[in-house]
Amino acid sequence: MKVQSYSKGQWIEDGKETDLTSAVNGDPVAQLVEADLDYKGMCEYARQKAGPKLRAMSIHKRAFKIKFLAQYLLERKEDYYKLSTHTGATRQDSWIDIEGGIGSMFTLSSKSRIELSDLPYHVEGDHERLSREGTFVGQHICVPRHGVAVHINAFNFPVWGMLEKLAPCIISGMPAIIKPSPTGSYLAYKVFKDMLESNLLPEGSIQFVAADVPGDLLDHLTSQDSVSFTGSAATGQKLKSHPNIVANNVRFNLEADSLNCSILGADVTPNMKEFDLFVDEVADEMTVKTGQKCTAIRRTLVPKKQVQNVINALKERLDKTSIGDPTQKETKMGPLASATQAERFEEQVSSLLETTESVYSNGNGQQHDGAFTGPKVLLCHKPLEVDDVHKVEAFGPMTTVMPYESNQEAIQLANKADGSLVGSLFTADDDIAREITLGCAPYHGRFMIVNRDCADESTGHGSPMPHMVHGGPGHAGGGEELGGTRAVIHNMQRVALQGSPTTLKNITNQYIKGAETEEADTHPFQQYFEDLEVGEARTTDTHTVTEEDIERFADLSGDEFYAHTDPEAAERSIFGEVVAHGYFVLSRAAGLFVHPDEGPVILNYGLENLRFTNPVAPGDTIQAKLIVKRKTVRQKKAKDKFPFGIIYWDVEVTNQDDESVAEYTILTLIKRREVLNMDIFEEE
Amino acid sequence: MKVQSYSKGQWIEDGKETDLTSAVNGDPVAQLVEADLDYKGMCEYARQKAGPKLRAMSIHKRAFKIKFLAQYLLERKEDYYKLSTHTGATRQDSWIDIEGGIGSMFTLSSKSRIELSDLPYHVEGDHERLSREGTFVGQHICVPRHGVAVHINAFNFPVWGMLEKLAPCIISGMPAIIKPSPTGSYLAYKVFKDMLESNLLPEGSIQFVAADVPGDLLDHLTSQDSVSFTGSAATGQKLKSHPNIVANNVRFNLEADSLNCSILGADVTPNMKEFDLFVDEVADEMTVKTGQKCTAIRRTLVPKKQVQNVINALKERLDKTSIGDPTQKETKMGPLASATQAERFEEQVSSLLETTESVYSNGNGQQHDGAFTGPKVLLCHKPLEVDDVHKVEAFGPMTTVMPYESNQEAIQLANKADGSLVGSLFTADDDIAREITLGCAPYHGRFMIVNRDCADESTGHGSPMPHMVHGGPGHAGGGEELGGTRAVIHNMQRVALQGSPTTLKNITNQYIKGAETEEADTHPFQQYFEDLEVGEARTTDTHTVTEEDIERFADLSGDEFYAHTDPEAAERSIFGEVVAHGYFVLSRAAGLFVHPDEGPVILNYGLENLRFTNPVAPGDTIQAKLIVKRKTVRQKKAKDKFPFGIIYWDVEVTNQDDESVAEYTILTLIKRREVLNMDIFEEE
Repeated sequence: MKVQSYSKGQWIEDGKETDLTSAVNGDPVAQLVEADLDYKGMCEYARQKAGPKLRAMSIHKRAFKIKFLAQYLLERKEDYYKLSTHTGATRQDSWIDIEGGIGSMFTLSSKSRIELSDLPYHVEGDHERLSREGTFVGQHICVPRHGVAVHINAFNFPVWGMLEKLAPCIISGMPAIIKPSPTGSYLAYKVFKDMLESNLLPEGSIQFVAADVPGDLLDHLTSQDSVSFTGSAATGQKLKSHPNIVANNVRFNLEADSLNCSILGADVTPNMKEFDLFVDEVADEMTVKTGQKCTAIRRTLVPKKQVQNVINALKERLDKTSIGDPTQKETKMGPLASATQAERFEEQVSSLLETTESVYSNGNGQQHDGAFTGPKVLLCHKPLEVDDVHKVEAFGPMTTVMPYESNQEAIQLANKADGSLVGSLFTADDDIAREITLGCAPYHGRFMIVNRDCADESTGHGSPMPHMVHGGPGHAGGGEELGGTRAVIHNMQRVALQGSPTTLKNITNQYIKGAETEEADTHPFQQYFEDLEVGEARTTDTHTVTEEDIERFADLSGDEFYAHTDPEAAERSIFGEVVAHGYFVLSRAAGLFVHPDEGPVILNYGLENLRFTNPVAPGDTIQAKLIVKRKTVRQKKAKDKFPFGIIYWDVEVTNQDDESVAEYTILTLIKRREVLNMDIFEEE
Repeated sequence: MKVQSYSKGQWIEDGKETDLTSAVNGDPVAQLVEADLDYKGMCEYARQKAGPKLRAMSIHKRAFKIKFLAQYLLERKEDYYKLSTHTGATRQDSWIDIEGGIGSMFTLSSKSRIELSDLPYHVEGDHERLSREGTFVGQHICVPRHGVAVHINAFNFPVWGMLEKLAPCIISGMPAIIKPSPTGSYLAYKVFKDMLESNLLPEGSIQFVAADVPGDLLDHLTSQDSVSFTGSAATGQKLKSHPNIVANNVRFNLEADSLNCSILGADVTPNMKEFDLFVDEVADEMTVKTGQKCTAIRRTLVPKKQVQNVINALKERLDKTSIGDPTQKETKMGPLASATQAERFEEQVSSLLETTESVYSNGNGQQHDGAFTGPKVLLCHKPLEVDDVHKVEAFGPMTTVMPYESNQEAIQLANKADGSLVGSLFTADDDIAREITLGCAPYHGRFMIVNRDCADESTGHGSPMPHMVHGGPGHAGGGEELGGTRAVIHNMQRVALQGSPTTLKNITNQYIKGAETEEADTHPFQQYFEDLEVGEARTTDTHTVTEEDIERFADLSGDEFYAHTDPEAAERSIFGEVVAHGYFVLSRAAGLFVHPDEGPVILNYGLENLRFTNPVAPGDTIQAKLIVKRKTVRQKKAKDKFPFGIIYWDVEVTNQDDESVAEYTILTLIKRREVLNMDIFEEE
C-alpha cells in the first residue's frame, strides 16, 4: 500500500518513499510517499472549490452528509480493524479508535440537527432588545468561514483523531486539509480514501497530506483559515507562534498530552466496590492502547493508608496482562506504536525513576521484540516536593502512585500538573466528590466521578465523549474540541447583527419579535410545511374571560389555588383580585388558534420559553397571534407514517389593551409533501 | 494629580515622574509616577488575597457588586466629565466613554443575574445523557479560574475600556491588574481610585499599573491567568507571542483597530431618508472622539453613481463641524489625544494620499495648536486595485470614499480589510440587506443594517453594545469581548463533569434528571424559599383521565382539534385514537401538585422546555412529580410587596405504566423570609 497525498483533486503518486512498518513485527505495512506538495494551491483549491458548495448547504444538510459518511465507513470497518492491528492495537484498542471515531460523527450529526438552525448558518440564542421601543434589536449568528481548516493529528488515534475534527468542521461548512502522523498513517489513509470514494462530500472538501512535516503549509494560511493541532506541547507551541499564524491571527486550537490523574477517595477501603473499580480503571488506562492515550492516568493519587493495598491490587491485576500479537484473542496488550516510541518510553521511565521507586514491572513485554514493553508502576513518596512526576510524561503503559493525606492535598497534587485533559475520582461519598471536583475543576477540561451507581454505564476515564468538551488548560494546550455543537460553533465566525426586527428576520430566516408579519390567507394549520413562510401569521378571534370560565377550569383541572378561587384571599395576593389560571390562558389561546379539521398539522409536541407577562382577570378579552418563527426539515424514517418537518411558532397572547399576557414558542410536527431521502443530497 | 500605581494593597508614591498634558492646551494635567513594580508579587497578591474571596461569592453576588460599583461611579460622573475634557473629548464624546462604560457594568450585571447560575460557578446548558439507562450522565459547568486577569487598555476610551473588561472579569470571579495607556490615564486613575474607595470589592481584586510598558509582568503569568489586550495589532501580536504566554498557553484576547467600513446600499438615492442617515453616520464617526475609535468608519463604500452626491453631502455636513475647546458648548470636535497622535495622523494621511485623492479637508483645526486637526475625506478611484486603503489606518477624523459597482463588489471591498470589528449598511431594501450582510459576515465581528425604521433608536455604527460581541477576525485581532454573558464565560474554565446524576446534582447544586430525590414532609408550596432544597420533591395523587374530561376541556378551551373530538378521524391520526389535549395534561398536573392555600408561593410565571413525550388516552392514569431543580435569590426592590426568590421546578408527569407523558420546568416566585439588601454583601 502506498500512502499518498491527495492534493487539488488528485492522488500524488511520485515522491520520496519511506517504509511504514508494523509495530508488531517490524515488517513493512505500507510506503509513505512524500511529494513536494503545492500547499498554497491546496489551500486555494479547498477555499475556492469546496467552500462555496459546502456553504450553500444548510447545517442540517451538511450534518446529514456526515451521518451518511459515518454509515459508509461503518460498513467498511473490518478493513480498518485489519490495518489497525499493525499499529499494535488489540480489537478493543481499535474499537475506541475506529468505532469511537465513527460514533463521534453520528453524535455530532444528530446533535447538530437537533440544536442548530436548518440554515447555512446558525441563529444563536434569543435576539437582544437594544432599544426602548424595540425598533432596533440585535441577533447573533454563526456563519461558515471562508477558509480551510488544517488538521494536524497525532499518531495514537489515526481514525478517531481524524474524524472527531473533521465532522464538526464539515458541519460548520469548512473544507479541511488533513495531515496525520506518519506512524499509522496507512490506517488514516484507508479511511480517507473511502470517504473520498463515497462521493458524499463536494470535491475539495478533504485533502490529505502524506508527510512527516507539513512543509510551508502554515505560510499560506489567512485569517479565515484555522489550525487544529493534536500532539506534543513543544511542537504545538512552535506552530502556534509561527509568524504567519500570529500575524494573521489564524485561529489555532492546541490539544496536548497531559499528566492526567485519577484519585481514590479517602472513604474507600479495599472491601468496597469503588476500590476494585479504581484499580481496574488505572490498570485499564495503563494497558488500553498500550498506555498511548493523551488521556491516560499517569498519576494515581491514593490516600496514604491505602497505598500498599492499591499497589498490591494493581500488581495482581497487571500480572494478568498478556502481552503479544494484538491479532491473538488472548492478547490484552500489544506493542507500542513503534520501536522509536518504545525507546523514548524507556528513557522517560528512567528519568522518572530518579525521583520515584519502581514497585512493579511486568516483564512479559521483554519476551517480544522492538516496540514491546510491559506495564510499570512507580511510587513517588513525597509527590508535593517533586516536580518531575507532574511534568515528565512517559507515553506508554505506566503510572506513578502518589500518596496524599487530605482532600486539599489531593486537589493540590491533581492541579500540580498545571492543566490536564481529564481527571477522575472514585468515591462513594458525595461530599468528597463535591470538594475534590470543585477544587480540581479550574485545572481540568473534564472530570469524572465514579461510584457503584454509575460504574456499569461509565464510559471511562480515558474516553472523550463527543457530547462533552475535550481539551484542558495550560499543559493540556488550552484548547477545546467536541462538547456537542460547541465543536461546530468553534469552527464558525460569530457575528452580532444589529438592525430593525424586520430586516434581521429577512437576513436570518427566523422571526424576531417585533418584525413585520403577514396574515395567512389559508389557516396556517391547513398548510403543508413547504408552504409555510417565516413571518406568516394568524391573528385569532377574541375571547372574553368570565368568572364562570375560571370556576369551570378550577373544577376541571383540580387547581383550586386561592388566587383563582377565593376572592378574599386573592385580594391579599400579588394580583389583588381573582385572576384566571395561567394554564387556562394557554388552553384558551390554543382554542383560539387551533384549526379543528384534519390537515397537515400532526401534533403539538412541545412548548418553550413561556412567560405569563400580565394577569388576566374576569372581563379581560384575550386574543392570540401565531407566527411562523422557524422551520426544520426532518428526515423521513421508516417508522414515520408521513414525512414531516418541525415548525416553531411564536405565540403572543394579548388583552383588550393590547398588553401582552403570555408569550411562548410552540413546536409542531407538520406534514411535508416531499419525501426527503439521500438522493436530494446528490443534486448539488 | 499624581497617577500612581496601586500594588499589593498600597499606592506606590515614589517613581519617575512624567507630565501628562492636556490635549487641548498642552498644560500638565497630572504626573505619571512610574515605579519599579513587583509584578510577580502583584500577581500573587491578586491570586492569593482576592481570588478565594471572589470565588466564595455566587455569580449573582459578584454581579451585584458590579451593579453597586456602577451606581457608586455614576454618582461621581461629573468628576470624570471634568477630567475627560483634558483628553480632548467633548461632553458627547465623554458620555460614550463614561456613561457607556458604567452602562456596560449595569447590563452585564443584570444579564448575569438573569442568565447565569446563582452559584459560584455556572451550570451550563442541559445535562447530557451518556448512557442507555441514564445512570452515567454529563454536565458542563464553568468555574472561576485561579488566576489573575491582566487588562492592557488603549488610550481612546480610558473609562469604557477599563470597565467593559473589568465587569465580566469580576463577575466571573477573577481579580484584575489594570494597565491603562499613559495618555489619558489620569481619568482611568480617578475612576479606579473611586472603585477602590467604594470598598465594594475584596482587597486585591483590582490593582493599577501606572507605566508606559508593563515591565516583566507577562513573565509571571501562569496557565490560570489571562491577558486581554486592546491596541495596535503590532504590539498585540508581540505580546501574544511572548515566550511565557506561549509556553504556558496563557489565554490571550486581542482586540485591534481595524479598517471598518460603512456601505450605502445601491437602492439609496439622495432623496431618501437612508441617504441622510448614511451621511450623518459617516460624518459622526469621523468627528466623535475626533475619529479615535477602533470602530470608526475608515472606508465609506458608495455606489459609483452616488459618489459625488455623497462627497457633496459630507462636505456640507463637515463644514459645520466647529473645532475647538471641548469644554465649550458650541464645540463639535476637540483635538486628538496628543500632539504625537496628531503628527502620526498627518503622516498616515500623507501615506494614504499616495493612492487617493483629497476631496475635502476642513481647515478649522489649523486655527488651533498642537493636537488639533480637521476632518478629511479622501477618494480612492479604484479601491479593488489598491491595498493601502484597506490596510493603513489614519487614527483620526478621516474616511476614504470608495466607489463600487455591484453588491458583490461591495462585499469584496468590505472584506478586503481582512477582518473588521464592525461594518454597516444603509439600505431600504431587505434583499440587498440580506445579500451584503451574509456576504460580509465571515469577516466581521458586528454588522449593523440601518433604515428609516430603526434609525431613531439605532445605537450607531461605532458603539459596541454590552449585549453584542465586540471583536473581529484577522486584522481586528481575532478576539471576542462583551456579547452579554459570553463575556463572563470567556473568563471562566469550562469543565465537562461526568458521573451519576445524584453525584452531579450534589456537585452542581442543580437537580439533574435521574438523581435521587427526597419527598418533602411539608408540601413544597407551603415552604419558604430558604427552606426548599435542591432535589426536594412532591409526588402527587393520581388522576384517571376520562372521555368526559376531554369533552369538557374541548368545550371550555374551545380547542376542538379532531384528535381530541372525532373518534373516526382520530383513528387516522398519528395516535390512532382519541387522546387528551396536551394542555389538559398540563392543567391537570398543576391541579395535582398545586396547594390551594395561601402560602409562600406567589405565582407561577413561566414554563420551559415542555415536551409531550407520550399521548394520554381516556382510561390512562396520570401522576406528577415536582422537584426543586434550582434556586435564584432576587433582590428586593421598593415596588415588591415581599422579598422573594425564583424556584425552578422540574416536573415529570407519568402514566400508570410509569412512562413519561410530559416533562417540563416551571418557574415560580417564592417568598423569602429574609430581606436582601446591600448589607449582606459587606459581611464577607
